[in-house]
Parts: sequence; structure tokens; C-alpha cells
Amino acid sequence: MEKPVVAVLGGTGNEGPGLAMRWANAGYTVIIGSRETEKAERIAGELREQLGLETITGMENRAAAQAAEICVLTIVAKAHRPAVESLKEVLQGKLVVDATARVKFPGAVPPEPPSAARIAQDILGNGATVVAAYQNVPASALRKALDQPVKSDVLVCGDDMEAVERVISLTEDGGMRAFYAGGLDNAVVVEGLTALLITMNKHYKGHGTIQIAGLNK
Amino acid sequence: MEKPVVAVLGGTGNEGPGLAMRWANAGYTVIIGSRETEKAERIAGELREQLGLETITGMENRAAAQAAEICVLTIVAKAHRPAVESLKEVLQGKLVVDATARVKFPGAVPPEPPSAARIAQDILGNGATVVAAYQNVPASALRKALDQPVKSDVLVCGDDMEAVERVISLTEDGGMRAFYAGGLDNAVVVEGLTALLITMNKHYKGHGTIQIAGLNK
Repeated sequence: MEKPVVAVLGGTGNEGPGLAMRWANAGYTVIIGSRETEKAERIAGELREQLGLETITGMENRAAAQAAEICVLTIVAKAHRPAVESLKEVLQGKLVVDATARVKFPGAVPPEPPSAARIAQDILGNGATVVAAYQNVPASALRKALDQPVKSDVLVCGDDMEAVERVISLTEDGGMRAFYAGGLDNAVVVEGLTALLITMNKHYKGHGTIQIAGLNK
Repeated sequence: MEKPVVAVLGGTGNEGPGLAMRWANAGYTVIIGSRETEKAERIAGELREQLGLETITGMENRAAAQAAEICVLTIVAKAHRPAVESLKEVLQGKLVVDATARVKFPGAVPPEPPSAARIAQDILGNGATVVAAYQNVPASALRKALDQPVKSDVLVCGDDMEAVERVISLTEDGGMRAFYAGGLDNAVVVEGLTALLITMNKHYKGHGTIQIAGLNK
């Protein structure tokens, strides 16, 4: 089966390129999206050079979304809502994967419900299917040893089980273990975990990740 | 240094005896508390027999709290608030460890803020210090191989760092890895994780636990 084209929107930060590298390395065609075409093209060029692959390109977010089947949102948390609103039209018909973790500073405070993914689903309406994933995966874990599994498990939350299964496959292709963890509203807990991990990282001066034990995958 | 006496209030369920066994096995004097003295005594007797130790006794919750320095709440979630209210007086001056995870059914829905531990602290006032811990630790993991580490890490949330450190020590003595994960309000995320684990356990037909990787302890 041919692999779907994946757009990583707001993909010029830390998380976006990490995910893009993993998927390109696994044989996916990946488009880095940004508000600025030039920036998207520049980052895509850097990743092509780094990986020795031609399958990563850069486009303005709208064009990137239009060209892809799966659109992963790695947008800065404070721009999440306006970005989803501005992309509403081009995201219709797409599988939208929301990686947003809204952590309030100072103090790394966990967000209150609803989850960012639920907010995105409400904005996009029934024409798009939102699934939440990747909120806790540190960019550093993604970028190293592309052929090795990522030591950070992914909790996948969504109301549409077919979409959830597609995201689990995408995630596993990227070298991460993925677990279905309930509906879209559960994603607020996963966002909150990011706040706790930030607190732990500061306290223990490390790079903590979440792993799930005891379940057969 | 002499080990503090630990009371496990509402300790006749699944979680309470599991924790009690671990601490008794590590040399703590443990009191199982229950609303019913007889039930507390019966469970304590069973644990004494099982462990071949005399350091577990059973008492009515109030008497158990009074005799202990550290009081761990393993009360059924729906009785959490009335139980804390009824124990308010005897919990003054105590280090209170709240293990409550409020999960709404059907559907294993994560709770909204504030955390159960914050609710307990608000009820108890400044005379007691509440720390949240053990919400995600499955009783089954506690009860097996008492001399082996528990394959479920503990996220410890509290506003008083001295109290947090005491709970971390208690937890590690019980064979669990413990991590400071921020203030008492963060505990709502840890409660929510229990809801996600229940969902995962059902979906994958297993016994999932959370582990933290990447931090040196």
C-alpha cells in the first residue's frame, strides 16, 4: 500500500523537523509547512541534506496541507487556535494530528479541559478528523539515531478509531511505540503530562520521557 | 533514624494492603485503617500471616490516624471528600498522602481540576500537609514479589518540598521509583493518567503501568 503524504504544519520548530526526519527516513513523502514559504523551504533543504533524501519539501502551511493526506500540527501552543482557524478550509477532508501541549508559564502549569485537539475538532467541524498525539515526545529523542526506536511512548487519543489506527501506524513507522489512550477529551491529560515532564526535567536536570510497561503491542 | 509509623486509611481495599505489605516488609510499623474496626483487624491479620511479620495492625480509621505520623489515604474515590471531612480533626499535624484517583464511569473519564489532593488540603487547612502519590500504581504490581522493585513509577506532587521528600523516601523504601512532579494541582494530571491506563488496559487486555525514562534517580 502506498504511504500517505504527510504535512507537518508549523513544522519549522524543534518537534516538527524531528517527526519529519523520522517519517522521511521510513519512506514517507513529507512536506514541512510554515507561515513563511522561505523558512519551510530552508528547513526542508537542511533535512534533505542531512538525510540524503529528496522526499522532504517545504511549502507555505496552506499549500502543504492541500498536498497532504495527513496533516500533523506542531504549531507553537499560543498560536494553536488562530492557526487552526486560518487553516480550516484546507484541512477539510484531512486526517489532522494535533501535537499541541499547552503549558502555562511560569511554573509549567497543566492546561484545563477541553484538550487542544478537542478545540481543533470543534473549529474544523465534521469535515476533518482530529487525533491527538506526540505532545510528550521530546524533539531531542526524535532527532537522534533515526534507525533506533524512540525512548518515548506515544499516547494516541481520538474519537474515530479508524483514524486512531492510522495514526498508530504512522507513529510506529516513525520508530515510536503508540498506544490508544481513549477519546479526544483524554488528550488534556497527555498535554498535562508535558507540564509534569518539564517540572521533572528541571528538578532532576534531565530529559524525562514517558514509557508504558505491561501492555503487549 | 527510626521509621515513622504509617497508617493506611481506607486500607482494606486492593491498593491499601498492597502498600501496607511493601512498607511492613521494609521495616515500617503499619496500621490498616477502616471505618469498621473488625474489617481492619481481619485484613491486618491476613497480612501478618502472609508476611510472617507482627508489625501490621488494624484499627478504626480515626484511631489509626492518631497513632501514625504519616497517613496514606486509599479511600474509594467517591467517599474521598466525606472521609477527609470526617477525619479532619485527627489528621491535624499529620503528613497526609492522598492516593485518590477519581475516574468517572462509564468510559473512564479523567477528572477536572482541582485535584483530589488539593480538595483534601483545602478541607484539612494549614494544620496538615497533603502530598499526592500512588494514584497509578496497580495493586497487582504492589502485591507480587515484595523484594523486587515495582514496575510502576510514582509521580509525587506537593507544595511542601520537605513533605514531598519524605514521601519520596517512603515510596522508595516500598520498592518504587518516585519522582517529584510539581505542586498539588499537578496531581489532577496523575489522576487522569489512571483513567487513560484503564482505557489502555481494556483496549490491549493488559495491565499497563507508567514508567519514567531519562532521569537519573
